[in-house]
Amino acid sequence: MYMTQGLLRASQLQPDMPALVSSKNSFTWCEVKTRVASLAGGLKDLGLKTEDRVAMLSLNSHRYAEFYYGVFWAGGNVVPMNIRWSMSEHIYAINDSEVKFIIVDDNFKDIGKSLFQECASLKGIIHASDNRAAGEMINYEDIIENSLPVEDSNRSGEDLAGIFYTGGTTGFPKGVMLPHRALWTSAFCFGHAANVTQRDRVIHAPPLFHIAGSAMLFAVTLFGGSHAFIDGFEPKAFIGAISELNGSMSLLVPTMVTMLLQSPQLKQTDTTKFTRLLYGASPMTLAILNEAMEKLPSTKFIHAYGQTELGPLATILEPEYHSVEGAESGVIRSVGRPVPSVEIEIVDENGLEVPRGVTGEIKVKGANTMLGYWKKPDETTETLKNGWVHTGDGGYMDKEGFIYVVDRLKDMIITGGENVYSAEVENIIMQFPGLLECAVVGIPSKKWGEAVHAFVVVRDGFEVKEAAIMDYCRTQISSFKCPRTIDIQTNPLPKSAAGKIQKFELRAPFWDGHDRKIS
Amino acid sequence: MYMTQGLLRASQLQPDMPALVSSKNSFTWCEVKTRVASLAGGLKDLGLKTEDRVAMLSLNSHRYAEFYYGVFWAGGNVVPMNIRWSMSEHIYAINDSEVKFIIVDDNFKDIGKSLFQECASLKGIIHASDNRAAGEMINYEDIIENSLPVEDSNRSGEDLAGIFYTGGTTGFPKGVMLPHRALWTSAFCFGHAANVTQRDRVIHAPPLFHIAGSAMLFAVTLFGGSHAFIDGFEPKAFIGAISELNGSMSLLVPTMVTMLLQSPQLKQTDTTKFTRLLYGASPMTLAILNEAMEKLPSTKFIHAYGQTELGPLATILEPEYHSVEGAESGVIRSVGRPVPSVEIEIVDENGLEVPRGVTGEIKVKGANTMLGYWKKPDETTETLKNGWVHTGDGGYMDKEGFIYVVDRLKDMIITGGENVYSAEVENIIMQFPGLLECAVVGIPSKKWGEAVHAFVVVRDGFEVKEAAIMDYCRTQISSFKCPRTIDIQTNPLPKSAAGKIQKFELRAPFWDGHDRKIS
Repeated sequence: MYMTQGLLRASQLQPDMPALVSSKNSFTWCEVKTRVASLAGGLKDLGLKTEDRVAMLSLNSHRYAEFYYGVFWAGGNVVPMNIRWSMSEHIYAINDSEVKFIIVDDNFKDIGKSLFQECASLKGIIHASDNRAAGEMINYEDIIENSLPVEDSNRSGEDLAGIFYTGGTTGFPKGVMLPHRALWTSAFCFGHAANVTQRDRVIHAPPLFHIAGSAMLFAVTLFGGSHAFIDGFEPKAFIGAISELNGSMSLLVPTMVTMLLQSPQLKQTDTTKFTRLLYGASPMTLAILNEAMEKLPSTKFIHAYGQTELGPLATILEPEYHSVEGAESGVIRSVGRPVPSVEIEIVDENGLEVPRGVTGEIKVKGANTMLGYWKKPDETTETLKNGWVHTGDGGYMDKEGFIYVVDRLKDMIITGGENVYSAEVENIIMQFPGLLECAVVGIPSKKWGEAVHAFVVVRDGFEVKEAAIMDYCRTQISSFKCPRTIDIQTNPLPKSAAGKIQKFELRAPFWDGHDRKIS
Repeated sequence: MYMTQGLLRASQLQPDMPALVSSKNSFTWCEVKTRVASLAGGLKDLGLKTEDRVAMLSLNSHRYAEFYYGVFWAGGNVVPMNIRWSMSEHIYAINDSEVKFIIVDDNFKDIGKSLFQECASLKGIIHASDNRAAGEMINYEDIIENSLPVEDSNRSGEDLAGIFYTGGTTGFPKGVMLPHRALWTSAFCFGHAANVTQRDRVIHAPPLFHIAGSAMLFAVTLFGGSHAFIDGFEPKAFIGAISELNGSMSLLVPTMVTMLLQSPQLKQTDTTKFTRLLYGASPMTLAILNEAMEKLPSTKFIHAYGQTELGPLATILEPEYHSVEGAESGVIRSVGRPVPSVEIEIVDENGLEVPRGVTGEIKVKGANTMLGYWKKPDETTETLKNGWVHTGDGGYMDKEGFIYVVDRLKDMIITGGENVYSAEVENIIMQFPGLLECAVVGIPSKKWGEAVHAFVVVRDGFEVKEAAIMDYCRTQISSFKCPRTIDIQTNPLPKSAAGKIQKFELRAPFWDGHDRKIS
């Protein structure tokens, strides 16, 4: 159970078939294997030791795939970095996981250079680009050209494969420690659910730093399929990848589905060979889903639900339920049933299983669970109990085992496919002078699925402007975490008997009448 | 990655659906879970500790499934026993693995009682039957009725799940140690290859002590399908299970396929819902395969190749290659390509990979490999090198990665789905007085796929009768291992320059003109 297995198997079975392609270049499996083994050799020459961390800060490209496999091959741990993080979040993640090398593309070389100055753990910065840069950066292509390929490290099973950061409740992201076993099993379940074969070519639309993006990378490789890269999601480029690069499948977040449907190119394109569309990571309305099924009649739809702590897959709603019958029975509103590698239970506050149809917390156990949070024993104990991951998501299970997610107990907001923990945003807002209390919730957004919305209560004698709070937030956290709208009031927020703010009440009027599908 | 997972998941998702059915009874998933947890509780009450061995000697029934899951649940190791073993082989296996409890059905209770007298490690004998027996045997149903269900042991991953005996080259079988990880991964690949869903019902035709039989049990449970049991393979009962018990799939050894095709009931039966037939474990001619595809037009054919040391799955030839194109390209003669969990290489005597199309030894690495042979460090070192299982099978790989098995390097004979190592039979024959040399090979048999055939060279001045050698063999080894035919001669056997008997030359005239598909 090793993450290099898919690469080794594919390069053995189909050495001369294209593996990583884009509009600019194409590499066969044999070439990729050699490049990966040389990258690993070069990283070791630079001083990489087993379990040393290597980060990547880059848009999608074939080099992102090589980064993952090259670091696994060398025996290191990957740290994929969110390109939308603020500088302080970048610094936090690198210091937190003591990253030794960072790989940046042309878009992030300046940030990379600053990080190299700031972070003591960094021993080298590698520039992944066709343009060979001078200065303190090591050129990625030089490493591959000049290094001897090494043998695979043979790390597997419980060995740590990488640290995947996810939104934190304390103001900074938490590092989810995923072993080879978890990533491998999740990839296997993904590949099975999407019925990936060696004839498939996946278009990588979501960012590869995101666990959903990397999971598709690992899944498709494991089943011998190939990969097409585009420079970030843009409907025209995506449609071009269907027709020019023979893309047969993709995983899209709902925002991307909406953008795709609005594109005038879609109608003029033959999509009969684009046979599978996986979606998830964010709420999507049934109206959008129906429109997508209508406009992509040859495409099977597959809904995936999970979270980083699960490597990430928990449930799958299969294509057969995306049908008239599925709509009539309501099962299309569910996130599907547990994949073969997991068990799921819905539990109450005391950890006891609730009857079918009753809402509780979704907990998940199986081969794809994390080892824990990096250097966060308390958060680990809170989330991982007896092998069960407590997802923090509220939901219920019906009699046939379908799961319906109804709310996020931890009040996480998913906006444009990114997780935003309301507590983190609230902590920042409350640093602004003159505020009494504050609550952050997700409200419906046509563009982002959910948008971050804040309620603030101003102290007597103070006057506070919406724009000033927004400006302050932008200096402290990623812009996607900042509230899009703020409701300033003087009345206290609704609270429970125990004094807890009732976010459900705050959220309700915004969602009323919305046909909301939460995933 | 735990073997109880499929049971836990299925009993959670579909508690009231039938799980284990036969013409005599039917148990739902919820009932099976309770029975398994109670059986585990009873075994622990009797003194079973973690990693204690529990053997089963029985025909197929729902209790065989409960045995596997019950022992896993209790934290013990399963030791499934070959019902065709001789008494000395039974004793050897029990002593070798120090079995603590043995479960026997009505057919094997006398053998069980003798074993209980003979083997010091046995602390109890359990009688699995609807008829409650008196005397020294503990009744299986009493255990389930009277024991409190316990919690699952939570053993997983590298923890030993069972010892699976396979034909030995030294006169006795070798115990293959399979961890939860290996059985789970192989089951996952099996279930993926056969596209098992919760709507499937597998008919258990091959014996459940055999790794192929247990692999189907584990695979179907993992994907939520259910199980139909018949009393051993008999075409009428099998066809009855298709129509009366809604069997949708099965794994058959070629001998069973042949028997099925000859059955007059087949034509009169609606087989449109029997949609998948997996076959393997023995050579099958293309003529039989073609006849089967013709007589079962709604059934997809899937060829599986592997061995006990691989938990057991290594390759799959998918339904799409069982076609006119597959026949024309010759790919139908292959055993298919490596399943996603394994890598395969073909190597020469020095362990170096040979070019495509060149025959060498098939070696396999992946998540479903064994931990080693029980108490046999030398044999383990010889077979398991750097994570690679050296299968002892000769074969080649084509340019597309399809594997063709051409010979068995260790001269194993597969007769009626059972492995017979020629060296073991030769050792017994050579104990007969008056023989100079001996070689045992497999020759074509319409009924068994291969039949055991011996060449013996008699010493000067001795006269030896075929029947006398056969009688002697029957007192020493299982009857399926005994030669069916013996060629008595006085000329020396053909040898290589190094003095090694050239079995290939001996075998050639028998196989000439046979359209042989080796798996």
